[in-house]
Amino acid sequence: MQQEAPKFAVVLSGCGVFDGSEIHEAVCTMLAIEQSGCKYQCFAPNTWQARTIDHFTGNAVAIAGDEDNRNVLAESARIARGNIKDLAEFKAKDFDAIVFPGGFGAALNLSDFAVKGADCDVNVEVKRAIDESYAENLVIGAMCIAPVVVAKILGKEHIHLTIGDDKKLVTSLEKMGVVAETKKATEVCVDEEHKIVTTPCYMLAKSLPEIYDATRNLVDEMLEIMDY
Amino acid sequence: MQQEAPKFAVVLSGCGVFDGSEIHEAVCTMLAIEQSGCKYQCFAPNTWQARTIDHFTGNAVAIAGDEDNRNVLAESARIARGNIKDLAEFKAKDFDAIVFPGGFGAALNLSDFAVKGADCDVNVEVKRAIDESYAENLVIGAMCIAPVVVAKILGKEHIHLTIGDDKKLVTSLEKMGVVAETKKATEVCVDEEHKIVTTPCYMLAKSLPEIYDATRNLVDEMLEIMDY
Repeated sequence: MQQEAPKFAVVLSGCGVFDGSEIHEAVCTMLAIEQSGCKYQCFAPNTWQARTIDHFTGNAVAIAGDEDNRNVLAESARIARGNIKDLAEFKAKDFDAIVFPGGFGAALNLSDFAVKGADCDVNVEVKRAIDESYAENLVIGAMCIAPVVVAKILGKEHIHLTIGDDKKLVTSLEKMGVVAETKKATEVCVDEEHKIVTTPCYMLAKSLPEIYDATRNLVDEMLEIMDY
Repeated sequence: MQQEAPKFAVVLSGCGVFDGSEIHEAVCTMLAIEQSGCKYQCFAPNTWQARTIDHFTGNAVAIAGDEDNRNVLAESARIARGNIKDLAEFKAKDFDAIVFPGGFGAALNLSDFAVKGADCDVNVEVKRAIDESYAENLVIGAMCIAPVVVAKILGKEHIHLTIGDDKKLVTSLEKMGVVAETKKATEVCVDEEHKIVTTPCYMLAKSLPEIYDATRNLVDEMLEIMDY
């Protein structure tokens, strides 16, 4: 049992499932962390969104380079009620865990996986955060589509992850060196050796209470690894 | 005990505490409804935001009339994952309850209370929704600053509401005819006669678990009135 309550870094990718962080997953993750008596600090990269989607019509209303496109840090700040830091300020030694909620922002803004698949590039600050977190022995959590970002950086270590049951996604993960496990919506894939915990969330879930349960299970397993 | 699970209309006012719906309050309300075995449909007025705030810097980046200002329905759709309807389509007879999460959007977009106080105007579709809901005997819920909107429409009935403990806000409510009750962050003010249930949430709360508890308590009291 650790003396102090573990500190989580929560890395957001915008605000809204189609171009940023999935809001329900982000909020339920923050809730699960605090309900466990732990603390969190939100971060996001200070970069432009790959695109901005009107979530009512589903249409793209701006793309990278457009004047009215949105900034990932400014939009993520909506979920964090303004209490958020530029990911460039993240130092792994200040945290016990780092967690990535899902949403297309993970595959559009944190990486360009949505465009390039297994050959994707990862945002430079996101890459640094994951590399440092792994080197400093933090527990790494990811949900929904966000495991692809962890896979791209740490796949060569043959980490175990879940990404739901989509065969194309599983093939992409395997190309990166990952051992892909199939899990149900609220189940958690625990890679104790590499301290990586993942869950499908809305990759498979149909309701908000499932997201509450999945993020609860994810945080519980992360704390289990920390022996807290 | 009703046969069918009650249906809630959740009325959003944008996406983000400073210019729209408070995201934690909105998500926890939707979660509490589903965790109770009930269903919800999100609505928002198809109108322009009074202003758009950069939630990282706190600065206004657009105001009504600017080309890059945002639409309340399109932004609210982010919280609803696209599953939202124009409030103009709301029919009280299809629902058992209507609930208004907080956030400045209630005082900027659903009404102009933030500018005009007790003399505020209420968006025409919001006014219709509240009038119809009251006439059709729905249970009405509101949290944080959103009770001001209900107060403006139904204050003349001498309804009981809570708005936290801010004296200026309490005075505004009283000017509208309301009996203002002081409650703690997660406590609920229940007006059984008028079927109106309110809770302070982030007007007083300091953490997300308090919002989870407050919205849980709000929905429980709404269901109690429905005898469910």
